[in-house]
Amino acid sequence: MSIQQRMINLQNISRRQTLMQDKHMLMIPGPTPVPESVLLAMAKHPIGHRSGDFSQIIGELTENLKWLHQTQNDVLMLTVSGTGAMEAGIINFLSAGDRVLVGNNGKFGERWGKIARAFGLEVEEITAEWGKPLDPQAFKAKLEADTQKTIKAVIITHSETSTGVLNDLQTINTHVKAHREALIMVDAVTSLGAVSVPIDKWGLDMVASGSQKGYMIPPGLGFVAVSPKAWKAYETATLPKFYLDLGAYKKATDKNSSPFTPPINLMYGLKVALDMMKAEGLDAMFTRHQRLTQATRAAMRGLGLSLFAPDEAASHAVTAVMPSTVDAEAIRSTMRKQFDIALAGGQDHLKGKIFRIGHLGFVSERDILTAIAALEATLQRLGDQGAKSGAGMAAAAKVLGN
Amino acid sequence: MSIQQRMINLQNISRRQTLMQDKHMLMIPGPTPVPESVLLAMAKHPIGHRSGDFSQIIGELTENLKWLHQTQNDVLMLTVSGTGAMEAGIINFLSAGDRVLVGNNGKFGERWGKIARAFGLEVEEITAEWGKPLDPQAFKAKLEADTQKTIKAVIITHSETSTGVLNDLQTINTHVKAHREALIMVDAVTSLGAVSVPIDKWGLDMVASGSQKGYMIPPGLGFVAVSPKAWKAYETATLPKFYLDLGAYKKATDKNSSPFTPPINLMYGLKVALDMMKAEGLDAMFTRHQRLTQATRAAMRGLGLSLFAPDEAASHAVTAVMPSTVDAEAIRSTMRKQFDIALAGGQDHLKGKIFRIGHLGFVSERDILTAIAALEATLQRLGDQGAKSGAGMAAAAKVLGN
Repeated sequence: MSIQQRMINLQNISRRQTLMQDKHMLMIPGPTPVPESVLLAMAKHPIGHRSGDFSQIIGELTENLKWLHQTQNDVLMLTVSGTGAMEAGIINFLSAGDRVLVGNNGKFGERWGKIARAFGLEVEEITAEWGKPLDPQAFKAKLEADTQKTIKAVIITHSETSTGVLNDLQTINTHVKAHREALIMVDAVTSLGAVSVPIDKWGLDMVASGSQKGYMIPPGLGFVAVSPKAWKAYETATLPKFYLDLGAYKKATDKNSSPFTPPINLMYGLKVALDMMKAEGLDAMFTRHQRLTQATRAAMRGLGLSLFAPDEAASHAVTAVMPSTVDAEAIRSTMRKQFDIALAGGQDHLKGKIFRIGHLGFVSERDILTAIAALEATLQRLGDQGAKSGAGMAAAAKVLGN
Repeated sequence: MSIQQRMINLQNISRRQTLMQDKHMLMIPGPTPVPESVLLAMAKHPIGHRSGDFSQIIGELTENLKWLHQTQNDVLMLTVSGTGAMEAGIINFLSAGDRVLVGNNGKFGERWGKIARAFGLEVEEITAEWGKPLDPQAFKAKLEADTQKTIKAVIITHSETSTGVLNDLQTINTHVKAHREALIMVDAVTSLGAVSVPIDKWGLDMVASGSQKGYMIPPGLGFVAVSPKAWKAYETATLPKFYLDLGAYKKATDKNSSPFTPPINLMYGLKVALDMMKAEGLDAMFTRHQRLTQATRAAMRGLGLSLFAPDEAASHAVTAVMPSTVDAEAIRSTMRKQFDIALAGGQDHLKGKIFRIGHLGFVSERDILTAIAALEATLQRLGDQGAKSGAGMAAAAKVLGN
């Protein structure tokens, strides 16, 4: 059958899919799949956010968020996207002119720099090629050279969603700790819930995240965890703020309240999601994400596809794949049309060059097998000569059989 | 029966209510009741916000939002509460040191002043006692005296949620228009959808609102409508911004996209809610809110309760009531425990002095009759001598019988 004939067949299949529109499968790094029980909880009528009943919900959420963050620090909830949480994390603890080291090896590291510059910080970037992890030694050198202690903060993206790279936060952080003065600020948007981010153990000062990721709920809630050291910096930080003034959130959270109207229904969903996470347990959750990552990577190798991030710096939330003989966008399009599976594309200069498989949050071993099986069939359809039939499934099954 | 015996009975009733927990009735000015069809739409699985399908939803929402706002101006959607929308409305169009006139006759007028000061604006307040409307003449005098055109903006709360006062935006705006230079910025959080806010006809430069009000959906989405004149001011405004940079929202909205991850499921709900509004029509919607307001006010008078705002400045979203012989908090507590109806209390110095009945959004004539009937029974229980049995219902029925 010619490729032309195959594409015509695909159009017909695509037409049939309209009957199957509720079979959509999200395999992107956000929004991630949402459990039915969370969706149904969100469909409850809102109650007043100043009521005793809702106050109880805020109290319970806050306790469970601290469990998820492995911390006794404050964990604050804001009505924002992940970017809003990142901005809140910067403007509350720094002032215009402050010198900061920003790690940039992807779209979200780049965004840290943009936010910091928008607020007049003096940004020094430590970069790595997209697809490669940041070099902890580069941070060490800068921090050790800073004998005047002018570096106010080191700002890192933990899991770089755009490339599937997990930066070595633990090692970078040891260098920050040796500096003693600088705060360590972390975008954990696609690491929280997927890999351990032990805030208290490592002494992370500010950790920002967003709801549509490991939290397993739709977008609309941002989270910021704040250490006592960061609160100390808050006292002298001078950037103007009101809606994102975390002092107001802390004051309200301490009384199981919120400074402004919170997204009540999303918080209903969060309650259910956190209960599910507690039932699974942190270790089991991290292990599941690790197994999904290993199975995905083994399968891609089996299929002869290149992995964009190296094994030793692989995000457990998302795997970026760089096909060589088939177009990445054609793969995504066929996966979408024939199998109704959404994969993410490349961003910016990686557009059309990579596709990304999300395995973050409410994703099971069955889901990843499904996605791999569909990908094999897709490569067949697109006439990828390199893809040995069954080789992806075989490799994944080997991982998941353990 | 003694009041003590009555309160014991109430405790028993309250215990029984736990079986009836899904019969809760929201009669507060936000969150407002949400239609079942909206709740069920929100319970759908999220799809990717960068997909073509979602792009179509953004396009449709934007068109319908313009219809609701009676404007051809941009109407932008942000993941924020109403306060976030207010802040975005200020920081995008003004710079530190700019002189602004702020109307303050309640908690939300006061909040405008707080936000403006937090960003270093030079705030001149025009105040009125809580419960009284702002005097347009006071604005006229200030604006006419400003021959040097140093006033950059006039900032007004249209419907003051804390007191149930509707400020005379139309007249105040004529004075702003005579000044020619100043922008007119409006908090329409509890006026949009309840009364006409004809943005294009009046020439309103910035109008901020939030989802949990007239929009009939849960909290988590903010809206900012921006005029060409405001966009002109944006070009030279210097306050730092990133997450709330409306230029980024405009750029994305023009391409049926969003700069950051939007609250997908709330937008599913908004789609249904806007379709419902279009089916009712703007005029019918405003008339319904007017009738609910008139029925509520007539009933309160029938029951011998004082209205906090005068007839000529009555908000069509919320009615504040000041009982004289019975405690406002006792009324709220009994309404909650016996009838499972939530009323709002007074804020700040009005705490315990007033209660507020919300009749905004998805509220029908049947709902307001229900609330009035329960209030009559509550006053009886609390031994209010002034409340003539049946007088509230009689007065409301007279209004609604027309």
